[in-house]
Amino acid sequence: MSIDSVSTPGRVAEDTEGITLDELALAARNHAMPLEVLRHDVTPVGLHYLLTHYDIPATRADTWQLSVSGSVARPLALDLAWLRHRRPTTVRVTMECAGNGRARLSPRPISQPWLVEAVGTADWTGVPLRDVLDEAGVDPSAVDVVFTGADHGVERGVEQDYQRALALDDALRPEVILAYEMNGSALPPQHGFPVRLVVPGWYGMAQVKWLRSIHVVDAPFDGFQHHAYRLRENTDDPGRPVTRIQPRALLMPPGFPDFMTRARIVDAGAVTLTGRAWSGHAPIQRVEVSLDGGEHWHTARLESDTGHRWAWRRFDFTWQATPGHYRLTARAQDAEGRQQPVDQSWNRGGFANNAIQLIQTLCR
Amino acid sequence: MSIDSVSTPGRVAEDTEGITLDELALAARNHAMPLEVLRHDVTPVGLHYLLTHYDIPATRADTWQLSVSGSVARPLALDLAWLRHRRPTTVRVTMECAGNGRARLSPRPISQPWLVEAVGTADWTGVPLRDVLDEAGVDPSAVDVVFTGADHGVERGVEQDYQRALALDDALRPEVILAYEMNGSALPPQHGFPVRLVVPGWYGMAQVKWLRSIHVVDAPFDGFQHHAYRLRENTDDPGRPVTRIQPRALLMPPGFPDFMTRARIVDAGAVTLTGRAWSGHAPIQRVEVSLDGGEHWHTARLESDTGHRWAWRRFDFTWQATPGHYRLTARAQDAEGRQQPVDQSWNRGGFANNAIQLIQTLCR
Repeated sequence: MSIDSVSTPGRVAEDTEGITLDELALAARNHAMPLEVLRHDVTPVGLHYLLTHYDIPATRADTWQLSVSGSVARPLALDLAWLRHRRPTTVRVTMECAGNGRARLSPRPISQPWLVEAVGTADWTGVPLRDVLDEAGVDPSAVDVVFTGADHGVERGVEQDYQRALALDDALRPEVILAYEMNGSALPPQHGFPVRLVVPGWYGMAQVKWLRSIHVVDAPFDGFQHHAYRLRENTDDPGRPVTRIQPRALLMPPGFPDFMTRARIVDAGAVTLTGRAWSGHAPIQRVEVSLDGGEHWHTARLESDTGHRWAWRRFDFTWQATPGHYRLTARAQDAEGRQQPVDQSWNRGGFANNAIQLIQTLCR
Repeated sequence: MSIDSVSTPGRVAEDTEGITLDELALAARNHAMPLEVLRHDVTPVGLHYLLTHYDIPATRADTWQLSVSGSVARPLALDLAWLRHRRPTTVRVTMECAGNGRARLSPRPISQPWLVEAVGTADWTGVPLRDVLDEAGVDPSAVDVVFTGADHGVERGVEQDYQRALALDDALRPEVILAYEMNGSALPPQHGFPVRLVVPGWYGMAQVKWLRSIHVVDAPFDGFQHHAYRLRENTDDPGRPVTRIQPRALLMPPGFPDFMTRARIVDAGAVTLTGRAWSGHAPIQRVEVSLDGGEHWHTARLESDTGHRWAWRRFDFTWQATPGHYRLTARAQDAEGRQQPVDQSWNRGGFANNAIQLIQTLCR
């Protein structure tokens, strides 16, 4: 009996193929952040987006151990008390799934079918990874640091523990932490209890949950998830790795919704449109709002710097609404000049999409 | 500009119609309980299923008020401190969405497309509703008690606050509470902060969230959501109301999953299958497990009575697994003789489904 009989290669949907039951099953398990939750600076637990490749493992705080091994002077076996006795640091981080927006692509890569809301912001508390690596004494030969979670499964025929690496330079950045608290409480099971990696500015695939080993290697790591998360045009294309989050703005839908279509209804008059914008590359510099799906743009007022470098920025725009149908959207630009596109570029994995959202709105 | 242009009548899917983007948007907003979470007696916050008809409203604890009015001797305006100074009660409740299983029906009613996991169990703490009604002094003429939430939207062309009623006899049952805590903490925003109604044994539509008014009426209430939640064969059928939860058992998927298909892989040998079973009508009396999709059944061991009348019961069965493909499932029977069907009956709203689940499993 072969795993290939239940684990099949990746594919893109046929032109006329609706969302499949497999995709729906993933959408039911994993969850996005309802867009009205953009009202919160920090996303309440249970509303932050969530993607679990395999199952949420049954981890325990009292028996949890983290091994630090490989090209180090002093291999370590850490427990939770060890981490909790170090000087903690808290980082506010906007995290986004690399596949956010995938279900709107054409053709649609068949995978977790995110629309636009696979995002959330949390206060993560833990120990800087570099403190742990210093304690272990990284060899001069070290190249990559490999992180392994307790989540086990099979993906396109390959059985594996979820595993990702960071180049040593990235691993030593001060904002990279081993987190044991989310929003001031112990990590919930679904966010990596008891300890996860948090890599501010990067898409979610880097943030290894249920962390159980850190292995320093002296040659570039090339695990399954590094091959999987690449921007490629076709199966032969070696592609480019997915790393930092592209700039994106999301509007909080105004007024009230229709249950089924999620279209919005607002009353004529002054309507304050608010939202959040973020980029993993550089600070957000400018946000614009459009009422007609991106044909005309208006400059929004951007919240001043809150000191949370890795978190989203709030923006608002006052719309003098008159009766009619509208397609509301926003776009962000970061300080390095990256701007959200109106039309989406395509790649086979459906990664790093940052096309504008569209909110169908009726003003009465 | 009419609301009808963005809020359309209910419909069922065409024979060949895949899950639509509207359905996917609801699946992204709302979320089910990943089945491995069946390992927990009480579902951790953020993993309990969640259905929000409109938006999660921006409620505040400090300004929250609950009015009690209508056919009562003493109309009340309660705040959170008033409720918190009453003697609290805690009830462990398994809650399930009335539409659980809808997306597996044929033809498929177009609405929130649940597969099988729209369930969760929580410890709800609050004040018995009957204590509040006693305080207000219900008139002898009272028939129904109407509950209104702060969530506002439009559904099939009808603008409304979410609103449901209970017959007075049901409202006075001792287990019905006004809950302000879930699992020992303040309600999260998405579960009705600061106060919600909890009606143990009933499907989720009865558990009005973000509760802001209780209105006692002397004639049967016939609001939109009472019309919407009925079992009917076609649009002309007056139907029967959806009330208590039908018996259901769910297995925790064994082994490990394939990312995309969610099929399971187990190794040959003894495999302990565990799960949970519940019924809103009467205690669970018997659970059976099948390895072949319901052709042959084996009696599972049922956990003894835990004293939590309104919560699910754990069961297990040891399977001597040999290599091959299997379709694992379980079915529950309650003490009043209701048993889960292998094949699903159909109704136009897709409510009160309790057909068995199916877990595709490879034993190697």
